[in-house]
Amino acid sequence: MTARDDRSSQKSSPPAGEDRLIARFFKPLATAPGAFGLDDDAACLQPPAGHDLVFTTDALVEGVHFLADDPPGNLARKAMRVNLSDLAAKGAHASGFLLSLALPARTDDAWLEAFAAGLKRDIDQFGCALLGGDTVRSPGPLMINVAMFGAVPEGRMVRRAGARPGDKVMLSGSIGDAALGLKVRQGGLAQLPAAVRDHLSSRYELPLPRTELADAVREQASAAMDVSDGLVGDVAKLCRASGVSAQIAAAKVPLSDAARSALGADPALRDAILTGGDDYEILCAVPAANAGRLTAAAHPFGISFTEIGTFGTGEGLRVLDGAGKDLIFTRGSFSHF
Amino acid sequence: MTARDDRSSQKSSPPAGEDRLIARFFKPLATAPGAFGLDDDAACLQPPAGHDLVFTTDALVEGVHFLADDPPGNLARKAMRVNLSDLAAKGAHASGFLLSLALPARTDDAWLEAFAAGLKRDIDQFGCALLGGDTVRSPGPLMINVAMFGAVPEGRMVRRAGARPGDKVMLSGSIGDAALGLKVRQGGLAQLPAAVRDHLSSRYELPLPRTELADAVREQASAAMDVSDGLVGDVAKLCRASGVSAQIAAAKVPLSDAARSALGADPALRDAILTGGDDYEILCAVPAANAGRLTAAAHPFGISFTEIGTFGTGEGLRVLDGAGKDLIFTRGSFSHF
Repeated sequence: MTARDDRSSQKSSPPAGEDRLIARFFKPLATAPGAFGLDDDAACLQPPAGHDLVFTTDALVEGVHFLADDPPGNLARKAMRVNLSDLAAKGAHASGFLLSLALPARTDDAWLEAFAAGLKRDIDQFGCALLGGDTVRSPGPLMINVAMFGAVPEGRMVRRAGARPGDKVMLSGSIGDAALGLKVRQGGLAQLPAAVRDHLSSRYELPLPRTELADAVREQASAAMDVSDGLVGDVAKLCRASGVSAQIAAAKVPLSDAARSALGADPALRDAILTGGDDYEILCAVPAANAGRLTAAAHPFGISFTEIGTFGTGEGLRVLDGAGKDLIFTRGSFSHF
Repeated sequence: MTARDDRSSQKSSPPAGEDRLIARFFKPLATAPGAFGLDDDAACLQPPAGHDLVFTTDALVEGVHFLADDPPGNLARKAMRVNLSDLAAKGAHASGFLLSLALPARTDDAWLEAFAAGLKRDIDQFGCALLGGDTVRSPGPLMINVAMFGAVPEGRMVRRAGARPGDKVMLSGSIGDAALGLKVRQGGLAQLPAAVRDHLSSRYELPLPRTELADAVREQASAAMDVSDGLVGDVAKLCRASGVSAQIAAAKVPLSDAARSALGADPALRDAILTGGDDYEILCAVPAANAGRLTAAAHPFGISFTEIGTFGTGEGLRVLDGAGKDLIFTRGSFSHF
């Protein structure tokens, strides 16, 4: 401690590393009033009247959920989208999020610039505000945590528990592209045309959360969750949470043209498609009388809803092949753990 | 993919690692209604009428914010407390939090049990509910992220920006124990009595968030923040955010008996005390007319509030020694980055 004449040294000294990063890359994104330009210790938000708040969080870790050379903009968007997907499946609309970054020393400004650009793109696209966060140094892998919250009309969050015997098992979009896309990224499926490989790979790199379906799911479904850990395992989870059984037909599971062509070339890929994970589609239990309304409500957004089976009494999940025989999977559910 | 007769294989298979951990260690802690026993993809909470919600998040990384052999229960509590401290300084009462854990493979059940026990202790002590989280594997260091939210009467969050010239610089509790405690933990200050060393060390290991002061700060302060990155740097930050200057007297900065005895033995420790960080006291700008009320409101909780200086016009922070000479610090602010 030494005495000097420069009275304003605390002010004029260059900002610390974290302050500089925040000021340069993240402050410009935090334009919501309650974010205070990331200049405060906390964010503030007035909850919409007559609504509950819905909270979720997901962590992505380098070497577990992504690779060091993944495009940073995609990582930013993926970190937001896995949370957006959770909220949509609960019938909620995303309001804002907190971002925690643990950055290895190798993280340079170019990486951060691309990361922030990806973040901004999805903040704008999904109307979900960056409200705050924490930036720390990691002596190991890069880690990204997003804690997101959204609003749902009071008492109307769609639960996992809620499926009733007789409800239809319904699924948005298509299943399996991401699992096949991971194989492509790992050098597999080399026999497929480049366009097919690119499509699959892109579905792995960047989930497409079904945020447009939140209202329809809330109005028509008795239970819902997003499919992130593989269809078979996630249907089983919904069954357990609801105290019901389910029977689904593998042949009814909706596939993209790309997945269909991959499966045609190698039928053994069915396992990866049905259990592979990272689909980020919405799985619903829907009373039979509502099934048509759900499909109709999704149609204007260009998203299909497909019935793949029925919930029943008792417990357990049966997945049947085209001949009505039970299929059993060596790995029911994908876990990043 | 093979067909077997065991129809309920999805159900009867042992839960995956993450599911088992959550069921065993964290589900018992998630007793709040909107946490759904961690069985859903999201938590749901009805915001209190007439209140805004205040959000904050902090990440703790092994090797940066803590050491691998730190007691796990203390880490859990520290992860909560650094956020509780932020909310208290904003005049908000904590409602709940989301916990993300990235766990190295070496993490065993004994570690998790102790971590969960610490978490439960502070959940109960501070009435702050575990609402959800994410548990992932880390190929590197252990990381703990807490995203916490609380409630504050509408429009009443205490900002960093808000200090006015003439306001008093006021400080709860005492400063420097944690910075000195870190030195103790690193093997320093060996000349001090064991009781003093233990006191200092405990203040480093486990912050004491001033949650009892939230109402008083909200009612009496024009600006506030918690002191986490060192007093000098944090006063300078509050000045910048508020567009004011400040002058504080080093001799007025409140010290514990332990810090005072350490400083007596080695006057050079003043630097560490004033800039060291991890204090988790509340720094306020308080109109002169309110200073007595703030002190009186804190008194029933056994917490002192001390005036250490005055905010003024212009910019910059002056820290004066007993002779009225400016003190300049080689490191104005501690950064974990």
